[in-house]
Amino acid sequence: MELLPVTGLPEVRPGDDVAALVAERADLEPGDVLTVASTIVSKAEGRTANFEDYPVSGRAQELADKHEAIAGEPKDPRFAQAILDESAELLIDVPFILAETRFGHIAPNAGIDKSNVPDHDLLLLPRKPDESAERIRAGLEERGHEDVAVVVTDTCGRPFRHGQTGVAIGWAGMPASRDWRGEEDRDGHELGVTVQSVVDELAAAANLVTGEGAGGVPAVVVRDWAFGDHAGSDELFRGVEEDLVREALREWEFDG
Amino acid sequence: MELLPVTGLPEVRPGDDVAALVAERADLEPGDVLTVASTIVSKAEGRTANFEDYPVSGRAQELADKHEAIAGEPKDPRFAQAILDESAELLIDVPFILAETRFGHIAPNAGIDKSNVPDHDLLLLPRKPDESAERIRAGLEERGHEDVAVVVTDTCGRPFRHGQTGVAIGWAGMPASRDWRGEEDRDGHELGVTVQSVVDELAAAANLVTGEGAGGVPAVVVRDWAFGDHAGSDELFRGVEEDLVREALREWEFDG
Repeated sequence: MELLPVTGLPEVRPGDDVAALVAERADLEPGDVLTVASTIVSKAEGRTANFEDYPVSGRAQELADKHEAIAGEPKDPRFAQAILDESAELLIDVPFILAETRFGHIAPNAGIDKSNVPDHDLLLLPRKPDESAERIRAGLEERGHEDVAVVVTDTCGRPFRHGQTGVAIGWAGMPASRDWRGEEDRDGHELGVTVQSVVDELAAAANLVTGEGAGGVPAVVVRDWAFGDHAGSDELFRGVEEDLVREALREWEFDG
Repeated sequence: MELLPVTGLPEVRPGDDVAALVAERADLEPGDVLTVASTIVSKAEGRTANFEDYPVSGRAQELADKHEAIAGEPKDPRFAQAILDESAELLIDVPFILAETRFGHIAPNAGIDKSNVPDHDLLLLPRKPDESAERIRAGLEERGHEDVAVVVTDTCGRPFRHGQTGVAIGWAGMPASRDWRGEEDRDGHELGVTVQSVVDELAAAANLVTGEGAGGVPAVVVRDWAFGDHAGSDELFRGVEEDLVREALREWEFDG
């Protein structure tokens, strides 16, 4: 398996065609997976915003006040409003905001980015990253690059372990997971591993070569990797009823 | 960046030298990272066990009874005892056991595997995976393979997202994380990403080519990837005081 960074991409602007920008610069083959950082997908989709776009609701003001009171750190109530607008549910409200986005991804501040965006205050995640991935995949196909799967990525922290890793938030042309249930190991035991989140592993792998900051490369081609002859599934984001940690967080309140 | 599976490894037995087994089969270059699945490290270290090795304590019997009563599923009290022996803390006790191992990794059943082990009931994780990684690294060096970093991997589920991914449990010859704090993006903004867990990303990448089961390849060489000129850190496992989710789980009780 090989990871090839797509170099030379320009600063992406609203209305830009990500598929075209990549196709002009990348050598793509059937069976490749293209990972694309959500930052450039969001920029192309015009998902930038400014604080003044967010008139503050009572709930956002409460959230900002609670931050000041409990966490001892001011939070711009307009930023709180932006997070609420992007969220389906807040899992943690103080001392930081952990939110489920409307498409199911759970991230601090609903994945809203305050860096990486020129001339604006905020960069929101794509509204429907699955559709973004599908659009890029179709755009590549139109340009003659058939059978290229696309994974839209974010970087995100997680419970239990320090640091952030690349994760998938949208994908097209492949399933999210490989399902090993019912398959056996060398000794004929049923496997302990059941479902392998290959889109997250592809996103993590790509993040190793993506880098961050000024030298960042927001698109990577994964070559000579195949999903293989396994069952697949497209479930990636857990709902509350299938996640004990979400259940525990619902019943819990931070007390300093 | 390239990932090269190390093929042809035999079934590993207690006392086997993992560094020697890999060095005989892999083409290794300075700067490479070798990922090794914990299954073969555990087998080489004789970390297999049988149910009869675990006389059942009162606490293990209670745990098994609680499973039967609340989750409606019997749990072998000897297996409960094995988990307790391997654990520093149980984060969740029913309907499944999520435990912190003595070296800090948080995994269902303290990472004890009931598949992947011939002639025994259980395969325990390495006792000190950092030392295992260091031993393999030193073994490679002795055989003339200098400057090869080693990552010992496990596969593990996680909150919020379905499926399992490869994660690191031990590493040597490189830091666990890249620290981007203070570095800037193209536009001079401070980066939103702060600490990147590169060992977990390497483990996730390797798991894409490792596979599972009968055709599994438990060692992978990562080539043409470099840590780069960044600060590093060796913190990977979060303690309770730095993890709100752990805090929430301590105060929470599953009620069916």
